Amino acid sequence: MTLWDGRFNQKPDELVAKFSESISFDQRLYAHDIRGSIAHVSMLGRCRIIPEEDAKCIINELNNIRCEIESGTFQFDERYEDIHMNIENALLDRLGDTGAKIHTARSRNDQVATDTRLYIRDEIDQISGLLIHLKSSLVGVAEKYSHVIMPGFTHLQHAQPVLFSHHLLAYVEMLHRDGCRLTDCRKRLNQLPLGSGALAGTSLPINREVVASELKFDSITQNSMDAVSDRDYIIEFLSAASIIMVHMSRLSEDIIYWVSQECSFVELSDTFCTGSSLMPQKKNPDVAELTRGKTGRVYGNLLSVLTMMKGLPLCYNRDMQEDKEPLFDTIDTIKLILSVYSPMIKNIRVDESIMKNAASDPFLMATDLAEWLVSKNVPFRTAHKKVGSLVGYCQAKDISPDTLNLRQLKDLIPECNEDCFSLFDPEKSIASRNVTGATSGEQVRKQIEFWKTELDVNY
Amino acid sequence: MTLWDGRFNQKPDELVAKFSESISFDQRLYAHDIRGSIAHVSMLGRCRIIPEEDAKCIINELNNIRCEIESGTFQFDERYEDIHMNIENALLDRLGDTGAKIHTARSRNDQVATDTRLYIRDEIDQISGLLIHLKSSLVGVAEKYSHVIMPGFTHLQHAQPVLFSHHLLAYVEMLHRDGCRLTDCRKRLNQLPLGSGALAGTSLPINREVVASELKFDSITQNSMDAVSDRDYIIEFLSAASIIMVHMSRLSEDIIYWVSQECSFVELSDTFCTGSSLMPQKKNPDVAELTRGKTGRVYGNLLSVLTMMKGLPLCYNRDMQEDKEPLFDTIDTIKLILSVYSPMIKNIRVDESIMKNAASDPFLMATDLAEWLVSKNVPFRTAHKKVGSLVGYCQAKDISPDTLNLRQLKDLIPECNEDCFSLFDPEKSIASRNVTGATSGEQVRKQIEFWKTELDVNY
Amino acid sequence: MTLWDGRFNQKPDELVAKFSESISFDQRLYAHDIRGSIAHVSMLGRCRIIPEEDAKCIINELNNIRCEIESGTFQFDERYEDIHMNIENALLDRLGDTGAKIHTARSRNDQVATDTRLYIRDEIDQISGLLIHLKSSLVGVAEKYSHVIMPGFTHLQHAQPVLFSHHLLAYVEMLHRDGCRLTDCRKRLNQLPLGSGALAGTSLPINREVVASELKFDSITQNSMDAVSDRDYIIEFLSAASIIMVHMSRLSEDIIYWVSQECSFVELSDTFCTGSSLMPQKKNPDVAELTRGKTGRVYGNLLSVLTMMKGLPLCYNRDMQEDKEPLFDTIDTIKLILSVYSPMIKNIRVDESIMKNAASDPFLMATDLAEWLVSKNVPFRTAHKKVGSLVGYCQAKDISPDTLNLRQLKDLIPECNEDCFSLFDPEKSIASRNVTGATSGEQVRKQIEFWKTELDVNY
Amino acid sequence: MTLWDGRFNQKPDELVAKFSESISFDQRLYAHDIRGSIAHVSMLGRCRIIPEEDAKCIINELNNIRCEIESGTFQFDERYEDIHMNIENALLDRLGDTGAKIHTARSRNDQVATDTRLYIRDEIDQISGLLIHLKSSLVGVAEKYSHVIMPGFTHLQHAQPVLFSHHLLAYVEMLHRDGCRLTDCRKRLNQLPLGSGALAGTSLPINREVVASELKFDSITQNSMDAVSDRDYIIEFLSAASIIMVHMSRLSEDIIYWVSQECSFVELSDTFCTGSSLMPQKKNPDVAELTRGKTGRVYGNLLSVLTMMKGLPLCYNRDMQEDKEPLFDTIDTIKLILSVYSPMIKNIRVDESIMKNAASDPFLMATDLAEWLVSKNVPFRTAHKKVGSLVGYCQAKDISPDTLNLRQLKDLIPECNEDCFSLFDPEKSIASRNVTGATSGEQVRKQIEFWKTELDVNY
Repeated sequence: MTLWDGRFNQKPDELVAKFSESISFDQRLYAHDIRGSIAHVSMLGRCRIIPEEDAKCIINELNNIRCEIESGTFQFDERYEDIHMNIENALLDRLGDTGAKIHTARSRNDQVATDTRLYIRDEIDQISGLLIHLKSSLVGVAEKYSHVIMPGFTHLQHAQPVLFSHHLLAYVEMLHRDGCRLTDCRKRLNQLPLGSGALAGTSLPINREVVASELKFDSITQNSMDAVSDRDYIIEFLSAASIIMVHMSRLSEDIIYWVSQECSFVELSDTFCTGSSLMPQKKNPDVAELTRGKTGRVYGNLLSVLTMMKGLPLCYNRDMQEDKEPLFDTIDTIKLILSVYSPMIKNIRVDESIMKNAASDPFLMATDLAEWLVSKNVPFRTAHKKVGSLVGYCQAKDISPDTLNLRQLKDLIPECNEDCFSLFDPEKSIASRNVTGATSGEQVRKQIEFWKTELDVNY
Repeated sequence: MTLWDGRFNQKPDELVAKFSESISFDQRLYAHDIRGSIAHVSMLGRCRIIPEEDAKCIINELNNIRCEIESGTFQFDERYEDIHMNIENALLDRLGDTGAKIHTARSRNDQVATDTRLYIRDEIDQISGLLIHLKSSLVGVAEKYSHVIMPGFTHLQHAQPVLFSHHLLAYVEMLHRDGCRLTDCRKRLNQLPLGSGALAGTSLPINREVVASELKFDSITQNSMDAVSDRDYIIEFLSAASIIMVHMSRLSEDIIYWVSQECSFVELSDTFCTGSSLMPQKKNPDVAELTRGKTGRVYGNLLSVLTMMKGLPLCYNRDMQEDKEPLFDTIDTIKLILSVYSPMIKNIRVDESIMKNAASDPFLMATDLAEWLVSKNVPFRTAHKKVGSLVGYCQAKDISPDTLNLRQLKDLIPECNEDCFSLFDPEKSIASRNVTGATSGEQVRKQIEFWKTELDVNY
Repeated sequence: MTLWDGRFNQKPDELVAKFSESISFDQRLYAHDIRGSIAHVSMLGRCRIIPEEDAKCIINELNNIRCEIESGTFQFDERYEDIHMNIENALLDRLGDTGAKIHTARSRNDQVATDTRLYIRDEIDQISGLLIHLKSSLVGVAEKYSHVIMPGFTHLQHAQPVLFSHHLLAYVEMLHRDGCRLTDCRKRLNQLPLGSGALAGTSLPINREVVASELKFDSITQNSMDAVSDRDYIIEFLSAASIIMVHMSRLSEDIIYWVSQECSFVELSDTFCTGSSLMPQKKNPDVAELTRGKTGRVYGNLLSVLTMMKGLPLCYNRDMQEDKEPLFDTIDTIKLILSVYSPMIKNIRVDESIMKNAASDPFLMATDLAEWLVSKNVPFRTAHKKVGSLVGYCQAKDISPDTLNLRQLKDLIPECNEDCFSLFDPEKSIASRNVTGATSGEQVRKQIEFWKTELDVNY
Repeated sequence: MTLWDGRFNQKPDELVAKFSESISFDQRLYAHDIRGSIAHVSMLGRCRIIPEEDAKCIINELNNIRCEIESGTFQFDERYEDIHMNIENALLDRLGDTGAKIHTARSRNDQVATDTRLYIRDEIDQISGLLIHLKSSLVGVAEKYSHVIMPGFTHLQHAQPVLFSHHLLAYVEMLHRDGCRLTDCRKRLNQLPLGSGALAGTSLPINREVVASELKFDSITQNSMDAVSDRDYIIEFLSAASIIMVHMSRLSEDIIYWVSQECSFVELSDTFCTGSSLMPQKKNPDVAELTRGKTGRVYGNLLSVLTMMKGLPLCYNRDMQEDKEPLFDTIDTIKLILSVYSPMIKNIRVDESIMKNAASDPFLMATDLAEWLVSKNVPFRTAHKKVGSLVGYCQAKDISPDTLNLRQLKDLIPECNEDCFSLFDPEKSIASRNVTGATSGEQVRKQIEFWKTELDVNY
């Protein structure tokens, strides 16, 4: 039988090479690897561990290599399994004995840890920028439609009228916390591991503080065995990314609901949908659906690294090579989602009348009546019960409470007076909810102003 | 501020295209897509839904396209977002009106479901073959070292002597169950969804049974709405793959322990390790470590699809496009692991004397003495207690129980006699455990013979 | 500072006891533990490993203990950390030397594995029954509303008209596969591990086949080291349960959408909802929401055991004690969900007119027109394009295609004739989709009949 | 057939009640619920929304209820499904109209969010304390054994000698980051959601700042729709807990390895192990194994809540009730693990001679020789190669490099001199690695002093 013979024509060492290599995915670290190497070599020169002249020469060649990689002329050699060995071997080829000095006083373990931290730090900065961009888009739309009324939902059932802008600003709050979590993650990872060697440090008189300062790390790691086997910063980043996906999947779900034929609150720009030349009613919210679907991939990446790290003995184990693909995939996914969502949000169109109509059911204002009674000194649970019986009466008669006259109303709730009728107006209902954080126009305007200032500063 | 401007220089529609495309990863389905299309078109011809001549013409061109893809001459067009549209559009370009008939009575939804089932079916066959190969390697090594004694562990503590081959055959059992699970998964997915249309079937008089038979499906799906939105077979496959990884990670852990300096039971061939030119004592078991690490990626892929499918309304949603990458990555990972493990296992070398020595501690035979007492009618818990006090006595005196003379032994356990001394021999201990499934040479030989026959048949 | 002093007043050994005990959750295994023990002791007697009289005496007392546990009079003793030791120690107290014989030729490792398999086997039977019950409820409702038309959705957008019963039967297919997966899992786990000892079998002349037969196991396990450390059957069960939750969460999502004010296709019985005395429009579909939410818990339980098993060396490790709570919680969750869903489904009320109205948009019948053209020998992509331009024309004029007269229709699509007008009728559209598995009344009736017979047989 | 009849004897409404209730697990929130209610009612009184006298009366009775719950005399009423309704209804029973005022200007949604935040905040404080306690234990043991040398491992292979205390301090670093993550999580969740109502705020003139200040929240939430449906703080906490488990599972793995017969570096106190009266060599590290196993449960809880929150529309959905059990289980698990680990660590015994012996293989000092050559101006890669050939020479002759005489050494590496021989001493190797974070005694002593001061301050 020969099903797998094809595969077994591959020699074991080819299989092992294929199994072990990381150059197919860690190429993207080239700039951070070179940046880290330059700082390291520069320090070696200053500390006279290698001649300063050699350091300059190496730095010069590293810059050349970076240019070549960026212009596509650098020859990657598949004999070298990762980006680090490709770069070091290019140096060796070009500079001989001088190139042979670059790896002085470091090991692959502390080098990779340094590269990855530099890389995530940059990506966090980019994602933070994209979060600000999306928040700006949301705030912009909130401002544009600041007068639009919609039903607020709980359990996907109409609950109380709210401002559409209030709903959008809820997502701004979420994305803001996401940004803060990334900032905390960045702060915590911003320590230089270089100098930790393979696990035990080095006997050569290096100056780690100088390298840290050059690479803009806040400080240096304090335990070499921890430094080479710590992957907390990757897991913490992936956790923060997973929470971003909680938020983006919720926003996507809202949008998918809003654009359904049943709901029709919102229309998306054609750019962000696929249509069907046969079924014009179909405008599939693909971006929202794919975003919701990609939540799984980001969660999966988090689980992948958590599982990989479970129960590993100190220090470095080869398992840890498996940290990179989930990290890279998560970063690419999050950046693409935030990038495409921002223009999609900016270009939504809102059907104000459908929304307002859905929010105008007088029963949605029952809570307002109960709170009005409380303001007339009726204990809350009693008020709740009285309004409940009014509602029951209307339901039984299949009438709307705003069609009762005052006498009928007073028969059911003696505390009622003329003022009560205005309570059935959704605009007034919204305006009355005027505590901090609530949905009144005044509060929402304050929030819009707050965010405009805040986002402007961070832009 | 411009951190993300680079990205935003991309126009929204470019971003959306990048976000939505699947051609970068679904190309690998080309052969199954073409195979499915040929069966479909052939049926359309036979049923006179399109002229038979047209059918032949399309089939001919599909075969050409397959050859071109395989020889690398087919021009993929990035305007078409997936493999299906690339192939259909090539047909349209080449055959005009005739080519325009291929998509008759089908939709992308049932087409993709068909392709994916065909693809997984083939991959299951390949993985089943690789499982047999690895089982054969394990059985081969078990036979080669069938006399080797080692300590059996519980809690990573020495418990009782066992045969090394018995330990290896435990993994054969696990891999056998893995194969059975894949067979069940294959059986369940082997139904043709084609003919389900976008969700509601078709009004054209197709013959689904003919297509099923042509494509070697056991039967056809019975509900079109289920058929286009079912992804059970992917999740079931990913679950089976995750259990394979449970087993491969356990085997890897065993190997990593066995090759540690502390243990030194086993040596791996250099091919499967990285060494260090500086530290000759180091022979890093990279293949075992990477396998253990890749467990995370396979679990993550399972979670990814489970999460994606959670709470999706019927029928097809675009989220489901996210089923492919976790599937493909899992298949590639499992195949590579099994492929590389098989020669690695075949080439292990065992240090019999270290293993036997570790298994020869007389205290490991305490259970044998207790069972011997039971055979002399001592109730088990009493026997257990008596042996316990013997052990306690020896420990207190820091002597080994096999160094006691008969009188001393009888003082502690009156039921003892001369026979007892042979109980401290690990070979005899092993030989005595001779019930089915136990570790005696007789039982293990039976198992080796069983597996040799079994695997031979399936080869 | 004393934040944690309270805790540290607990002595270490109390903490360890609390950490290690399982009696708080493994009590539920009592019946299976006793059943397994009776079969084991009976065999010991028959094989003369212990006197037959002793065996009878032990069996008698085990039956007493079962009755006491069931009547609540059995005294659990917290000094014994699990259910197995509680029962064995009760025997010892009551029967002295005779009771001391029960643990002959077995260990806790093979005993627990046997108990758990017996337990899951019973629970699978119960869950299979509940699946049949729920399928029956779905088929019943499908039959009751077999004439009701609704829009079929893709991307949560209206796509084509389908029968409501066809939609319900899609779930019957899913639940049927769930039952089959459980059956496969049951088949695979139905092997007796008892006789494997702690890891190496036993030297006593037990008869494992007799025990297997008594306990209705299909066969006995063939490798003792595998048998005591295998947890595949738990993971396979948890995977099958997770797929059940995929289906139940999708059904829940459909229901939550259907009962929204926007959709209003379906109304649930009050029993299965919470309402609000203030907001009568609110009838929160709590059962559907909680079911969707509990998906997370079932997935989490699966990942919990997968993570726990990753990288464990052979054989038994104490980590494995962590297999029980996720298993028990999953079983309880699945059983409760299926139990409550069945009456909820039986009692849904459907608003036929809203549903039919939503399905009657003539644009939903565009695919029918395209297929009609194919039947008139227009190549499919050409037919697709022609209908597309008709649709575009109608949209531009903001008219519905069914309001065109024949001349107008022929101007746009020359192949059209009088018959075309009937294509815009959703009833006819549905009736025309009459291939196996499609949505026509004929096909759906067949399916209903099939399931009624099938479910009847299995009841 | 009657398999499930038992269950179906339960009436649907009983099933729904059982399905929906949370009182069985949310009782533990009683103190935080009462604390939140007291602050709320006190504010209602101060703001004259209810009479101050009523407020006092309610507060008094809430204090009574707390005392009754704590003394076990409070009657929970199973008609009320959660802790909040149990307390409110007790108030109603006891205070009538006055009690009916407590729920004024709040809803269950903002109340539960407030309770949960108060609860997590307290638990974070407790866990932070336990982390400090465990770090203190680790530092204490590090100080006690500060002179002990062991082999440092990578790939579970001996790499270079390190101080045992350096290894322990690596875990102190990890646990320190864990504490910082909890602090960040606490800071982010420390905002008052009360006042957000069901989703839209309230029309009553409450003062949220006063309540926030009373409950020691740093600020108030700014968007009511976000505030009632935000569960970020739970996910962030569960992520931080999962990273704690990464660390505790790694420490457990190290310990399990150290106490194996093969390794025997460390012995645990009997209190933390189970032994076997038969096999005295067995001292099972149950606490370490269970901790490693419980990693799965904590990861599972995280994924459970992530899955539950995926794709939920705004605002509150009943699914969210599923947030509590994973949270509570995680908190209980983490606290128990940290509590039991601290005394276990304090009581480990170390076998210095075995450890030192394992670290004394001269090949482990090969890196030292290479670095010494670098200090003599040999380029690193050249030095690496020279030492490599020395190692190869020794291996081929099966001799140890420290047994060569100077001439032999110089033949292989001309740069060598007398000083080289001292490089093979593990003590000197360790002492020479004296950069910050490395393993020299000087550096490790600095770290021990640092942590002693740091932990003292936080105690």
